[in-house]
Amino acid sequence: MKGRVTLPSEAGFLEETKEMMERWGADALRDSDGTKLPEEIKALDATIYTTYFVARGHNEFAKEHMEECQQLYLMSRRVTAGKQTVQIPFMEGYFTQQVVPDYVHDCKRWWEVMDRTTGEAVDADSWDVDQTRHVVTVKGAVPFHEYTVSFLVYAVWDPTQMYNHITNDWGDKPHEIPFDVRQPASGQYSKEYLVQWLKDNPRTDVVRFTTFFYHFTLVFNDRAKEKFVDWFGYGATVSVKALEEFEKEYGYRLRPEDIVDNGYYNSTFRVPSVRYLDYMDFIQRFVAEKARELVEIVHGAGREAMMFLGDNWIGTEPYGKYFPEIGLDAVVGSVGGGATLRLISDIPGVKYTEGRFLPYFFPDTFYEGNDPCKEAMENWIGARRALMRKPVDRIGYGGYLSLAYKFPRFVDYIGQVTDEFRRIYDNIAGSRPYCGLKVAVLNCWGQLRAWQAFMVAHALWYKQTYSYFGMLEALSGAGVDVMFLSFDDIKRDGIPADIDVIINAGAAGTAFSGGERWLEEELVTAIRRFVYNGGGFVGIGEPAAVHFGGRYFQLADVLGVDKELGFSLSTDKYFTKEVPCHFLKEDRREAFDFGESVKNIYALSEDTEIVEYSDGEIHVSAHGYGKGRGVYLAGLPYSYENTRLLIRSLYYSAGREGEMKRWYADNPMCEVHAYPETGKYAVVNNSMEAQKTAVYDGAGNAREVSLEKSEILWENI
Amino acid sequence: MKGRVTLPSEAGFLEETKEMMERWGADALRDSDGTKLPEEIKALDATIYTTYFVARGHNEFAKEHMEECQQLYLMSRRVTAGKQTVQIPFMEGYFTQQVVPDYVHDCKRWWEVMDRTTGEAVDADSWDVDQTRHVVTVKGAVPFHEYTVSFLVYAVWDPTQMYNHITNDWGDKPHEIPFDVRQPASGQYSKEYLVQWLKDNPRTDVVRFTTFFYHFTLVFNDRAKEKFVDWFGYGATVSVKALEEFEKEYGYRLRPEDIVDNGYYNSTFRVPSVRYLDYMDFIQRFVAEKARELVEIVHGAGREAMMFLGDNWIGTEPYGKYFPEIGLDAVVGSVGGGATLRLISDIPGVKYTEGRFLPYFFPDTFYEGNDPCKEAMENWIGARRALMRKPVDRIGYGGYLSLAYKFPRFVDYIGQVTDEFRRIYDNIAGSRPYCGLKVAVLNCWGQLRAWQAFMVAHALWYKQTYSYFGMLEALSGAGVDVMFLSFDDIKRDGIPADIDVIINAGAAGTAFSGGERWLEEELVTAIRRFVYNGGGFVGIGEPAAVHFGGRYFQLADVLGVDKELGFSLSTDKYFTKEVPCHFLKEDRREAFDFGESVKNIYALSEDTEIVEYSDGEIHVSAHGYGKGRGVYLAGLPYSYENTRLLIRSLYYSAGREGEMKRWYADNPMCEVHAYPETGKYAVVNNSMEAQKTAVYDGAGNAREVSLEKSEILWENI
Repeated sequence: MKGRVTLPSEAGFLEETKEMMERWGADALRDSDGTKLPEEIKALDATIYTTYFVARGHNEFAKEHMEECQQLYLMSRRVTAGKQTVQIPFMEGYFTQQVVPDYVHDCKRWWEVMDRTTGEAVDADSWDVDQTRHVVTVKGAVPFHEYTVSFLVYAVWDPTQMYNHITNDWGDKPHEIPFDVRQPASGQYSKEYLVQWLKDNPRTDVVRFTTFFYHFTLVFNDRAKEKFVDWFGYGATVSVKALEEFEKEYGYRLRPEDIVDNGYYNSTFRVPSVRYLDYMDFIQRFVAEKARELVEIVHGAGREAMMFLGDNWIGTEPYGKYFPEIGLDAVVGSVGGGATLRLISDIPGVKYTEGRFLPYFFPDTFYEGNDPCKEAMENWIGARRALMRKPVDRIGYGGYLSLAYKFPRFVDYIGQVTDEFRRIYDNIAGSRPYCGLKVAVLNCWGQLRAWQAFMVAHALWYKQTYSYFGMLEALSGAGVDVMFLSFDDIKRDGIPADIDVIINAGAAGTAFSGGERWLEEELVTAIRRFVYNGGGFVGIGEPAAVHFGGRYFQLADVLGVDKELGFSLSTDKYFTKEVPCHFLKEDRREAFDFGESVKNIYALSEDTEIVEYSDGEIHVSAHGYGKGRGVYLAGLPYSYENTRLLIRSLYYSAGREGEMKRWYADNPMCEVHAYPETGKYAVVNNSMEAQKTAVYDGAGNAREVSLEKSEILWENI
Repeated sequence: MKGRVTLPSEAGFLEETKEMMERWGADALRDSDGTKLPEEIKALDATIYTTYFVARGHNEFAKEHMEECQQLYLMSRRVTAGKQTVQIPFMEGYFTQQVVPDYVHDCKRWWEVMDRTTGEAVDADSWDVDQTRHVVTVKGAVPFHEYTVSFLVYAVWDPTQMYNHITNDWGDKPHEIPFDVRQPASGQYSKEYLVQWLKDNPRTDVVRFTTFFYHFTLVFNDRAKEKFVDWFGYGATVSVKALEEFEKEYGYRLRPEDIVDNGYYNSTFRVPSVRYLDYMDFIQRFVAEKARELVEIVHGAGREAMMFLGDNWIGTEPYGKYFPEIGLDAVVGSVGGGATLRLISDIPGVKYTEGRFLPYFFPDTFYEGNDPCKEAMENWIGARRALMRKPVDRIGYGGYLSLAYKFPRFVDYIGQVTDEFRRIYDNIAGSRPYCGLKVAVLNCWGQLRAWQAFMVAHALWYKQTYSYFGMLEALSGAGVDVMFLSFDDIKRDGIPADIDVIINAGAAGTAFSGGERWLEEELVTAIRRFVYNGGGFVGIGEPAAVHFGGRYFQLADVLGVDKELGFSLSTDKYFTKEVPCHFLKEDRREAFDFGESVKNIYALSEDTEIVEYSDGEIHVSAHGYGKGRGVYLAGLPYSYENTRLLIRSLYYSAGREGEMKRWYADNPMCEVHAYPETGKYAVVNNSMEAQKTAVYDGAGNAREVSLEKSEILWENI
């Protein structure tokens, strides 16, 4: 078996590259961070990917055009006014090698001093900027109010290169300066350079854009450490030119505060304002248009254009409205698990997708005494569930191939992985797997942030998010059809007729739970009607939570539970008894694990089926509402047991629990994926131990199956 | 030793009563629930208390005046509109033996149908009442909106008698009907009857009002069980007459929703609205005026008037503005622990206070095989700390003396207790104990609810409150001066100059934390200024919490910590390292216990002293702010260790930690109370085991002291 695999290579590694291509069945070669492909390697019988930077790595140009550097709005630290005059050293805490204040444009026009105690902007006549000391002095301040300055900076160091530079101690290697293609010279240069580059790199088959124009927000502090990171952040898209063009187009002016947003910088956890959504749309259209120009140049040269999903990807959202207009051939992204795999493999409108698997062939993993197989197995087994639902078209690796080569067990293991991948891919053959239900994940972002909810930095664990992200990870490999729905989708088009279950999950007030959006009666009634007519609603954590009208969960009537905030302590809560047997916990073997969980959930009436009650509160419950049901879960960190709990919640909420055991494995360590169009089905052991399980075929007939550790058993239907 | 002790007695128990009076040094006798004092007992050499009911227990009158029954506004359950017509059986879930709908007054004028999905009232033309079926039919309803009816009822059964009646299975004993002294006949009757009663009860020395006019809100459900209980609730003060008089006086009309309040019925946990505060004031003035008339009648007959703090006590708030006008001689109340003891003993403007201690001499405790000493000891030791600070003037017991008499060990123990009480009382001799600091507990209610914060039903434990109530319990016996301050106090008069530390504690949004009151910049700046100038601020749980301006804790700058709500996950949180040694945990022996605790607290900068960090979050921290400090505690369930933690927090926040060890015991099980005016001090062992401790005198000199279990060692200064 051969193909669908991309390897990194490097200079002086020709014979071994050939050998590794053979052993892993690779048909493409790439350069990587710190490596370049020599001509002899480019001459091999392989598709050649070459990394291409649009808006950095051209310092000879950038240094001539420092006025075209990228910009950001930053917020100073808060300074409390002791007296009526307050001095704000606004650059304090920032990394002066990364950002420098923009004194080119009129500070009075483009900056803002905020009284954070009142939330009001301070009149521009009341403050002045000392450009030598980088201090704003506010006069007539109110003692004991807190003040901040929102100020424009130029970014003079690309964040990814900065991170690598500092982490790897690259010394005096030049800092790559990010320039803004919205500016005249940069826009022109970015195209002309590409034309020439394509001429200079005739062996390149695939231009791997890393990426386009604007890096996600990544700001360092004065100790050269990360201060702020938002994988979705539009921070670096800002410029005076952009703001002026925005005003012209939209007929209103954005304030610094629209971008700075109290220092939250419009994190995806914020319920987005209409102004910020306008701004995102404005940037996305610009980025799509400019990126298309580059892609067309690539195509004109007879090459393919591939985008790396990360780094300078802002504005290219692959699930956004404008993404198809870019005309990319492919997207490649890093795979952290099932959800990030689906984030790549579900991307519509490209010829192929590629997942870069872990570990990266870097010395942090590939050192003597360490077994890189462990990370590889975890990564592969974690992502494989999702591959079974919707495979990426290719897999690949990054780093120094020469490093990996020194670990023969690893080389063997990846050989098995690549074969297994190709077998999966061939057996699925582009067909749609059997889906027992269609599930919509509902939040402020919907499709735009498909598989990306609850993410801060790409695929990183956060205490405040893992109890929700587990839901996405569980869904990524589950036998259900998954879509992402926004509140605005529902308001505009209603709830799609083919949806069986809606999930709303997250912490109160966030864009994922929905915050004040739940005060909109059209939303609340749409979901009540949907459930009443037989749909399912699964709420995780603090679903539909905003305190109004005597309720915290605005869908408490559907869920049958609410959260006690203290205001209704006077009302007796009699309903505390667990249902001893319940569909939701039928095959639970281990103790429940709700992760961070949620406190003080209580049942509204005896109609609520309490599935788990401990420590004086409910953590799992169900409740009939018309023909449908609401199911409440206090949290869902990822595990196979919790995946099963979610699946059961979905079927139960939709009132279709009788249909769950089709293409189903009783053992929660195992899953069944069926492909009716190709007449195949697979029984998968997700665990690293041998397992036995009853396997149900599509008609609900069971048979006992034994599986080796992590085995996939392929059968004909 | 003799005196300051009140016993219950009963018929047929004359000789034993004499014996018990002797053994416990009692000088007063009382009747009790279910007992009456016969003439022979009333003739003993003792002050005779007689329970007196003003507004119930006169059914012969009440039945003739059913139109003068007390009233309440109740909210129906929520009914979801399926179609455009929705029927609301509003009495569903209520106990028809307790309340009946008021069809006497115009429903269209006095009732309200609420659309709870929009928060708006439905036009009175759109609904009708079926008075036979007790159903409101709403026409033109919006499908999938929830509707409720706020309706007036007559109360036809006094809640306390109802509770006793049902609990003790009193069968066909008549239901006592509560009438409203605001009504003409009832107002007249209540006075005339008292005049006659005083004539009929010449042996009564003290008329023990139980209580005056309006019972705290206590509503039962259709299964004759408690449905709603609020010890502070004004539910039963409502009537059409009251509402009309309110409108005349205040110039605006209260809506049913002003009383019903989303079904929360203005629980003390709610940040009170101005309209509700107006209403409370209106009722308090009325109650004070009417109660004074009765007290004057009592005084006119040469007797004393004592009020029981509970049951029909609404409007008599002993810390309220109008309480002194009533002219009571005494207040008696039930003692659940230190805070409820102080609630009684701190009452200003009466000649004496009395605490009724536990256990009540009832069969639920006094049965064969049970040891009632256990409850008595817990109650006594718990309340004794508070007595050492501010004693009640008398203690007493209730129930059947004949029951207690059968438990000789109990009789012995109470003999010791009464002696110990008298010794404490005599040694303190009305003097002010040494207070190292003056502490203000700040919330929406201030002095009006002194020692009553976080209470739902009197002295009952609630999962959602014990982590805050522990602060009050700790303070009740602590060597500091305690006052209660409201936000309005600060806005009106500023922060009193003699206050050293302000405590704000509670769950976000509640009246105790303060909710949206913290958006008022005068409050925030007043406290910042206070701390900046050297004051202390101790925040417990979710202090000053309301999400605004990029902060959840509006005093995050003072505390040095805030709570992560999800919006600022993109900001790196580097400050996670505990200070290894810190004043706040110097003598901590046991693991910290924060009760329900609070999640996701993080430090704003390295200036925050992290005293306890676990599970990725801070639970104890301190932070300098000007000359003062903020201290954060994630919760403070009551314990001796936590009392010490609080004391340390108070001294540390005020920057006076050097002064803590005056009149101080190192062992947290022990406390020292000094009375400079009388030249005495006491070393108290609060535990049931022998203890050794270093004891510091007022000059800071230490000596080692050994104490028997629960011993008090009295010394001269």
